[in-house]
Amino acid sequence: MPRYRLTLEYHGGPFVGWQRQDNGASVQGAVEEAIEKLSGARVTVTGAGRTDAGVHALGQVAHFDLEKHFEPGKIRDGLNHYLRPASIVALDAALVDAEFHARFSATARHYLYRVLNRRSPPALDDGRVWHVSIRLDAEAMQNAAHALVGLHDFTTFRAAECQAASPVKTLDKLKVSQRGQEIHIEASARSFLHHQIRSFAGSLKLVGEGKWTKADLQKALEAKDRSACGPVAPPDGLYLVKVDY
Amino acid sequence: MPRYRLTLEYHGGPFVGWQRQDNGASVQGAVEEAIEKLSGARVTVTGAGRTDAGVHALGQVAHFDLEKHFEPGKIRDGLNHYLRPASIVALDAALVDAEFHARFSATARHYLYRVLNRRSPPALDDGRVWHVSIRLDAEAMQNAAHALVGLHDFTTFRAAECQAASPVKTLDKLKVSQRGQEIHIEASARSFLHHQIRSFAGSLKLVGEGKWTKADLQKALEAKDRSACGPVAPPDGLYLVKVDY
Repeated sequence: MPRYRLTLEYHGGPFVGWQRQDNGASVQGAVEEAIEKLSGARVTVTGAGRTDAGVHALGQVAHFDLEKHFEPGKIRDGLNHYLRPASIVALDAALVDAEFHARFSATARHYLYRVLNRRSPPALDDGRVWHVSIRLDAEAMQNAAHALVGLHDFTTFRAAECQAASPVKTLDKLKVSQRGQEIHIEASARSFLHHQIRSFAGSLKLVGEGKWTKADLQKALEAKDRSACGPVAPPDGLYLVKVDY
Repeated sequence: MPRYRLTLEYHGGPFVGWQRQDNGASVQGAVEEAIEKLSGARVTVTGAGRTDAGVHALGQVAHFDLEKHFEPGKIRDGLNHYLRPASIVALDAALVDAEFHARFSATARHYLYRVLNRRSPPALDDGRVWHVSIRLDAEAMQNAAHALVGLHDFTTFRAAECQAASPVKTLDKLKVSQRGQEIHIEASARSFLHHQIRSFAGSLKLVGEGKWTKADLQKALEAKDRSACGPVAPPDGLYLVKVDY
């Protein structure tokens, strides 16, 4: 049975998240419905990352199986036809080996968190950035971020409802940079805990406004205690950029 | 009577354009209403550029007079309060000389036109870019764009309803560059004719897809005939970036 890999871009605002749920429209559900309209088959689509409600994707990866063979370009264009007017598009579709698994074959996930750091709220990027009006020191944030890179017990930065077997993960990259009026936080790892990047962003914001030092962030990490975390940043600024295999 | 200068960012999608009109909400009207809520005074706001319906601004400049003195920061924050939930924000407010005129004192206007050049439509940037699925050659577009720079009679690239006294204008800059999946067209001049940049973008697209050569674009310019223009590009991709004084 042919297996297809999809690369998806979406605005997470209208959705309860990637995963199909009873309480509203999900990205997974919308893609599955579009596949059914295109092929007549009811399939399950597996995503690389289960993005939360309001979280966006520039390059989510997913896979599904179809009995019937379709030319991959037809899958991509057909899905883009049936997905309208949902804020989801297929950037690419490809035939892959039966061993390919969007979630378990992934070797790295790359996320971007966008902070709009200025006095005035966003007119053009409402819902696409975290608006922080207090002036943040991106350099101090970048310096502190080093404390989180590497193999750590990330219990402090993990949502209570996280289903991962272990809070011990290796964070490969956490980079903070000023981009005009925005501060970008780039995070890469094989896998992340639930709310991990939004927890990082919320704690780094405390460093940026001078409420926390690098040592405070270090202490929060070492506490291995959820209550030591800064306020979790909103989903609006978070983008799943790319998944490596 | 104190004169105030505003710098505004807006998403043009919900508006009939900058200018107050009978057929729907305008940016000018929304700003004037917010000023009235803030100050109690009914004023006229004059903008540097009368952006069309659907055209966005990252740095539109406008001025207005108020009898009462307000601290400029209060004007900015107050307008941002009363403008909600409209997709308009004041980035800055300042007290200026009585001679300052947002439209007539401007020495240069800088626009950006964004083309999303890929097969799949935009999920995140719907309404913010012109989606062109045919592959465009940005280098050929840039090369042809040189033909339009300088002092010319731009009758070909001017809407029939244009109210400018003369079609002769000096175009200071027209730069085309590839930015990832996007092609950016940057245009600068003291002033522009109605639909001039969207007419440039539509004609440059013909060059990008190989339907027109640089010589064809040159001929279109020299024809001084509106019917020689390529199809006018949609407003979605156009941004008023900055106004110089």
